[in-house]
Amino acid sequence: MRPYVHVNVAMSADGKLSTRERRQVKISGSSDFARVDRLRAESDAVMVGIGTVLADDPSLTVKSQALRDERVMRGADENPVRVVVDSSARTPPSASVLHKGPGRRVIAVSNRADPGKLRELEPFAVIVKGGEDRVDLAAFLRSLHGMGVNRLMVEGGGTLIWGLLAAGLVDEITSFVGNMVIGGENAPTLAEGEGFVREDSFVGLMLEDATRIDEGILLRWKVRR
Amino acid sequence: MRPYVHVNVAMSADGKLSTRERRQVKISGSSDFARVDRLRAESDAVMVGIGTVLADDPSLTVKSQALRDERVMRGADENPVRVVVDSSARTPPSASVLHKGPGRRVIAVSNRADPGKLRELEPFAVIVKGGEDRVDLAAFLRSLHGMGVNRLMVEGGGTLIWGLLAAGLVDEITSFVGNMVIGGENAPTLAEGEGFVREDSFVGLMLEDATRIDEGILLRWKVRR
Repeated sequence: MRPYVHVNVAMSADGKLSTRERRQVKISGSSDFARVDRLRAESDAVMVGIGTVLADDPSLTVKSQALRDERVMRGADENPVRVVVDSSARTPPSASVLHKGPGRRVIAVSNRADPGKLRELEPFAVIVKGGEDRVDLAAFLRSLHGMGVNRLMVEGGGTLIWGLLAAGLVDEITSFVGNMVIGGENAPTLAEGEGFVREDSFVGLMLEDATRIDEGILLRWKVRR
Repeated sequence: MRPYVHVNVAMSADGKLSTRERRQVKISGSSDFARVDRLRAESDAVMVGIGTVLADDPSLTVKSQALRDERVMRGADENPVRVVVDSSARTPPSASVLHKGPGRRVIAVSNRADPGKLRELEPFAVIVKGGEDRVDLAAFLRSLHGMGVNRLMVEGGGTLIWGLLAAGLVDEITSFVGNMVIGGENAPTLAEGEGFVREDSFVGLMLEDATRIDEGILLRWKVRR
């Protein structure tokens, strides 16, 4: 058993999540921002890869007070469990995700993660160890499910999303496509990593919905089984 | 004066034009195929970069007999002028684009292109020289306009499209977004090259239309001036 996995990203019209410098840029607008905040509030956990932590230092908190209140009213923490996939335990102990706002944190590391670094992180997060050099994502999602995570939102980056897709662990993708071209052969995209080379290995999707919001379009894809 | 420049591509849901091996893959379906054929037939010239010639060996001909007949009826050649941007004159003299179907061909090369290679290509195409190491795209589009090209369709790849976008030479982008994830940090996207790093240098677009066709969605963007 694993959680329902919902990947949510904003990309430029040319498919970039940010610039080649990995600097966070404004791709969507206030309507999409509100939608993402609601999606976070409705999730049991929100996950990012270590690259996103290092590049953006996100807090991954629910921004709307009303949505936080809703969560508390139904007996949940104010914020979903915040999860970092971090094979080598590079999360800075000062990272916003470990300090901003109340709620639980989980860091997934591989067996090769430095014990000294893990000791620095243990005061702030539950550490889940597994996988030789890289986190075993399937096993980790099972662990999250065991912690009560039924709905998992994944906010990036492209390397983590690739790992999840390649392992068949994604159920749904929402991508807001914004009205700009960022360009760059080294700028990150929704699915990085090695990539598939054979057409029969591509991850098949179904377009469930397409809605124009802000100055772009929100695409909702379900992953075919 | 330059032609109206219309970029047309098909990309996966994660923004890839093909796999990391640059192998051409089926992203769209028969409805999009027919649309692209009509767009070709309505263009005075169809342009690709040398990377696309080497990877796909496309003929860039109009596939529909009816559309070719329409062109001939209005006094045009059966096929639009086929144009390759090829700074170092690497186009193989046997390339399909130089041989399949009647019509004119133009190859744009830079001043550093090897004269021996140019002599091999001259029997099959008009050679237009310009730019130190890389084709001067603005000057080349002016040359094309001088040859009677008012509507130019650009079919890729990502490096040529990046060059055109970075030089402010694109008017419209249509991108079919298909129902699959290809993945790969090295798989090509709509806009490759260096990429922009500052938000105020991004190419701004307006979403003119979004239409679901085949199993994906066709997005029509106009470039903001």
